[in-house]
Amino acid sequence: MSLPTFSDTRPALGTPTDELETPTVVADLDAIDRNLRDIAHLADDAGVGVRPHTKAHKIPTLARQQEDLYGPGVLCQKLSEAEVMVRTGVRDVMLVCPVVSGPKLERLLWVADHADRFATLVDCPGNVRPLADVAARQGTTVGVIIEVDVGVERMGVAPGKGASELAALIAEEPALEFRGILGHDSHVPAAGKTVEGYERECAGVADKLERTVEAIEAKGLPVETVISGASSTAQYMAREPVVTELDPGRYVFNDATLLAACPEVDRVDCALTVLTTVISKPTRDRAIVDAGGKTLSYIADPKPVPKYRDDIEFYRVSSEHGFLDVADASGVSVGDRLEFVVPNAYGPINLHDTLPGIRDSRVEEVWNVSARGKDI
Amino acid sequence: MSLPTFSDTRPALGTPTDELETPTVVADLDAIDRNLRDIAHLADDAGVGVRPHTKAHKIPTLARQQEDLYGPGVLCQKLSEAEVMVRTGVRDVMLVCPVVSGPKLERLLWVADHADRFATLVDCPGNVRPLADVAARQGTTVGVIIEVDVGVERMGVAPGKGASELAALIAEEPALEFRGILGHDSHVPAAGKTVEGYERECAGVADKLERTVEAIEAKGLPVETVISGASSTAQYMAREPVVTELDPGRYVFNDATLLAACPEVDRVDCALTVLTTVISKPTRDRAIVDAGGKTLSYIADPKPVPKYRDDIEFYRVSSEHGFLDVADASGVSVGDRLEFVVPNAYGPINLHDTLPGIRDSRVEEVWNVSARGKDI
Repeated sequence: MSLPTFSDTRPALGTPTDELETPTVVADLDAIDRNLRDIAHLADDAGVGVRPHTKAHKIPTLARQQEDLYGPGVLCQKLSEAEVMVRTGVRDVMLVCPVVSGPKLERLLWVADHADRFATLVDCPGNVRPLADVAARQGTTVGVIIEVDVGVERMGVAPGKGASELAALIAEEPALEFRGILGHDSHVPAAGKTVEGYERECAGVADKLERTVEAIEAKGLPVETVISGASSTAQYMAREPVVTELDPGRYVFNDATLLAACPEVDRVDCALTVLTTVISKPTRDRAIVDAGGKTLSYIADPKPVPKYRDDIEFYRVSSEHGFLDVADASGVSVGDRLEFVVPNAYGPINLHDTLPGIRDSRVEEVWNVSARGKDI
Repeated sequence: MSLPTFSDTRPALGTPTDELETPTVVADLDAIDRNLRDIAHLADDAGVGVRPHTKAHKIPTLARQQEDLYGPGVLCQKLSEAEVMVRTGVRDVMLVCPVVSGPKLERLLWVADHADRFATLVDCPGNVRPLADVAARQGTTVGVIIEVDVGVERMGVAPGKGASELAALIAEEPALEFRGILGHDSHVPAAGKTVEGYERECAGVADKLERTVEAIEAKGLPVETVISGASSTAQYMAREPVVTELDPGRYVFNDATLLAACPEVDRVDCALTVLTTVISKPTRDRAIVDAGGKTLSYIADPKPVPKYRDDIEFYRVSSEHGFLDVADASGVSVGDRLEFVVPNAYGPINLHDTLPGIRDSRVEEVWNVSARGKDI
């Protein structure tokens, strides 16, 4: 028996977009180029660096492009991502998740030794100690940044005194080198809402960072780097004198989350979309497309946004189905192809091994999402 | 320079569970064996078949085990899953998602020709026509089942008259062979809540299925197969005389969703868990573990359930972080390992290429999740 070609989701270069099998997530290369450049101009004008987050794309080609464009290196969310980035030629990596267990600490030291520049993140004495011990044992010095809780209430030591005590603890460890602080500001969009709200919340973040820098420097420890400013807040944090590097991630693609949070983002800037086909129209006002939570991720809010139509609404997602309200649509039939901006770029990027890049309605690139699919 | 071993998440057989790097999703083999057998007894007692859903595990080894144990074959959610299952020796496959576009229809015909028995699903004239055309053109006959909307309001033709008209349309197509109906009942847990509620809702589902069988058979078309009864409703639907085959999926693993929905499910029956490590304890009452939405999926409700502790609560998930309330816990420190029942088995299964199977606190199997990671 002859076997068929199985589900090789890597399309041939040059394939017309209209002929790609669905569901498939694709990237608009022109939009990505614009998005990469826009933040470079923003940062240049403000005199700050950009240290983008590779968790948003997990693609070494893009990470190297970002490093070349902006100067500082990148942030990686996971040890496995940092390994991939260093192995594929990224020179300056900060790992922004603590590593506390034996075998993973050994891997972290490999990354530290093979990057041109490396730092890892801590936020409490419990994750300083194992790192200091293994670095000392292996005779290596590891750069360290402290996460300060600027309002997210996830990880992060308290600003000011809390952070300065932790910095002093780090300074006592001969195998660690204190580099600076990071304040993750992902709480701002929900708290901010309006331009004035964003300005107020970002000023609040900057206050906490300034207070922390003062407290640490009062102990005689210079704070070389202060990182803050996500994709939604970069334009506000860039103006704050305390910030030395912005850390946006999703701005490369933009997505429905940024579309909802940032008035300056337009659908045309949203580079990551899913191509779908209508597979069922069981009622007059409901159609079902072939992209659900296993293609887009189960992130339920916001919904995927139709890229080119205003008369259909994507109102629900189950594992393999997308639910459309087509009551207001003029003609939606089984077999129709529809394109939607993804809810949140992190989700689909984490679900696909390859990402076709589209230009002039054809596949011009197929990127390997090489840092994907690795838990540890 | 020597390269490290990169993120090979496939642990060696025999590795003690305590030595697995975290985060990692693992399966309890004894619990799976019990869960597989329990539903066989339930179905035998009721005199119905079990046609389990492979979307819950995507593991050919488990699918073949289910087919051997229950008699009827399996349901597959996607064409690519059906391809994998048939290629790895599963004999009887039903595909429960319509295929409407050219190249995928050709692949569907390959599956139909290489399975011992095959049927695919339709729910409206728009997805009957392309299937009938391609099957006729290639001189093949394809089995067809109709999805009837029994209350989910996703896909599915209206019960009774709507379904009988669609069955008649199918019967007119010489290349299609009408087999039966499927009523997906995933709305029952939310509508049912209590035992009485489940009984009432399941009786309502059965009424719709009976009415549909009568309407179709009134047109002279025998309804060979009537499929209904998810993991949460199988015990109720098994009693309904109209049902010929149950279609549970997640029962193999159980998960926090079934734990919340089914009083008879206990934590000890939950076979799919995530092993995590505490990486940060930024405040007295909050700890952060290294498993978030990219390990567990972003399904936000219900939360992961601690497998062996009652004094900690997993209250939030972000991409790579799990948030624990440890205010009531006696001693949780950075470096501690904690095990949680996953919120919904579908999510993590879709995110991992391999699944270590644990027995007697060691890795006894490492399954390939071979039907995973394929969109189309």
